[in-house]
Amino acid sequence: MQNTLMHEMLADYGSETLKGIHSYIPNKEPRKYLYDLVADYPDRGGKGFRPGLCIAACKAFGGRMDDVRDSAVTLELLHNAFLIHDDVEDESFFRRGKPTLHESTNRAIAINLGDAMNVLGLYPMFKNRDRLGDRLAKQVFLEVQHMVTESVEGQAMELGWRKDNVCTLKESDYMRMILKKTCWYTCMHPLRIGAIIGSRGQVDPDIFNRLGYFMGTSFQIQDDVLNLVADETRYGKEIGGDIMEGKRTLMLIHLMGACSEGEHSELVEFLSVPITKRSPETASMILEWMLRYGSIEHAKITAKYLAGAALKEFYTIFSRLPESRDKTLIESIILYMINREY
Amino acid sequence: MQNTLMHEMLADYGSETLKGIHSYIPNKEPRKYLYDLVADYPDRGGKGFRPGLCIAACKAFGGRMDDVRDSAVTLELLHNAFLIHDDVEDESFFRRGKPTLHESTNRAIAINLGDAMNVLGLYPMFKNRDRLGDRLAKQVFLEVQHMVTESVEGQAMELGWRKDNVCTLKESDYMRMILKKTCWYTCMHPLRIGAIIGSRGQVDPDIFNRLGYFMGTSFQIQDDVLNLVADETRYGKEIGGDIMEGKRTLMLIHLMGACSEGEHSELVEFLSVPITKRSPETASMILEWMLRYGSIEHAKITAKYLAGAALKEFYTIFSRLPESRDKTLIESIILYMINREY
Repeated sequence: MQNTLMHEMLADYGSETLKGIHSYIPNKEPRKYLYDLVADYPDRGGKGFRPGLCIAACKAFGGRMDDVRDSAVTLELLHNAFLIHDDVEDESFFRRGKPTLHESTNRAIAINLGDAMNVLGLYPMFKNRDRLGDRLAKQVFLEVQHMVTESVEGQAMELGWRKDNVCTLKESDYMRMILKKTCWYTCMHPLRIGAIIGSRGQVDPDIFNRLGYFMGTSFQIQDDVLNLVADETRYGKEIGGDIMEGKRTLMLIHLMGACSEGEHSELVEFLSVPITKRSPETASMILEWMLRYGSIEHAKITAKYLAGAALKEFYTIFSRLPESRDKTLIESIILYMINREY
Repeated sequence: MQNTLMHEMLADYGSETLKGIHSYIPNKEPRKYLYDLVADYPDRGGKGFRPGLCIAACKAFGGRMDDVRDSAVTLELLHNAFLIHDDVEDESFFRRGKPTLHESTNRAIAINLGDAMNVLGLYPMFKNRDRLGDRLAKQVFLEVQHMVTESVEGQAMELGWRKDNVCTLKESDYMRMILKKTCWYTCMHPLRIGAIIGSRGQVDPDIFNRLGYFMGTSFQIQDDVLNLVADETRYGKEIGGDIMEGKRTLMLIHLMGACSEGEHSELVEFLSVPITKRSPETASMILEWMLRYGSIEHAKITAKYLAGAALKEFYTIFSRLPESRDKTLIESIILYMINREY
């Protein structure tokens, strides 16, 4: 499948999901600082991988758009709620090329909006009962509950490392953290939920766990790399923001193990002060070290290995299914991840 | 019922709920900045009105503690999650006599903890299906969903007023806001859920709406008064914090309508700057104006009127029920609200 076709299908599924989101936004007060803002992040148009994977998995396993739309809406609402809070927590300035929500309104309003979107995300889960029946709807709900639980656990790990200025992390710690924070949300549960609905509960969702882990880690590592080296306009966030935020990325962990003792002390010192006290000049220097010590190259290669492993898993799982546009879409997303530049 | 007995019963129901909360906290990592903190606010021991009202209503309508405990746990988890986010949003320093969670950890960890408690609050709702059956469990879940929705709407109203520095509010605006932000959470839904479970769905929960509105508004207005005039040690929060935060209280709205033009301009000016730029001296002066213009007295009287109306509603609804300790407990809570000093 060509990239163009993949993006067309993702745009199509994304727009179905977005229409669904809009249909769940109450047409009432308070608008200005609540319901008018629910679709702000979703309307900015992300890549649409999550609803795309969920809808494609459903259809590849024999289901229809009408069966899965509400679940895709829940995924997107909860994901965007998570992003709003994540942006506040990280004090980020940009999201998808525009100011983050707490920058364009204020922190209090952004936190409350995220809470509102979390509860709004439960409404489509109830609609599921009518269409999918109690048993399937319950199964999907438990998937969603698990997804959110894993994400907050991963987030707590990451935030705790920053708070305690932990500088002794191993790569395996990082992988466990993004398994929780990224993989369940971005890959495993979208695929699992899609397949559960498409197969009417006939497929064991655990078959997607390795695939989702390889895809999700590859995606996240590549995302962290792009945060450092991407073209700012296309990437939509401030470049190098992760270094300023003290985010424990694979590159930072690699650098900590590769750099000289003096550089290591400078790194620890840089990370030990509050974000507002960190100098952008030191951040630039750290980025140079990451280039010099091959930390970025190491991360890029790791991401490609993981994408390769994801591809192998994909063929193992999906070879038993008949060919379809949706099966090919999932394959294309994996292939795309290997080479994406924004 | 004497105050002592009321407090004993509330402590008993609160401790049952707290035990329930602890039983839902996963015994696993990440502990330090997640699961170890879930019970932090609940362990500080609030007044326990919410679980108290819920359990008492259940028992007064013929149900048992075992039927309602999980729902009380959900109410407390979600309420405390709301408090954690509310404290971040208001930049409050103290909660129940100790530093707020974002002060004792940091803002990011507190926001994520609130999110974790929101999802943790869904788990007891699923347990409800086993004990109460699908129909009742679904009804309770919809109550909870509505409760959270109303709260974030009320919060959005209040935060929006501050953001836009709205200085033309009427008392009815304030009453509508606390109906959403306080009444559903604190009174209406605890009573409704308790009665739904106790009567096995035989009672129309709407009969509690007027009672809950009168109770909740009386409670909130009295709470706002205590924020200005209570004994700090017993109240557990910083006195006058609401004025510094620019909170639109009944007193502030009354003062705006009662003070001189010059004072009005000073008020608007004080409210127009960020919280960190507001002078505590001006806040003290505003408090003096509230005393001088009778704004605090006006609020106290309003709270008593509302408590009286709540009492009348209580007798109308509960006179048909046989006498019981739990019926008396609800009555005592209303009576207590009329005269509470912290």
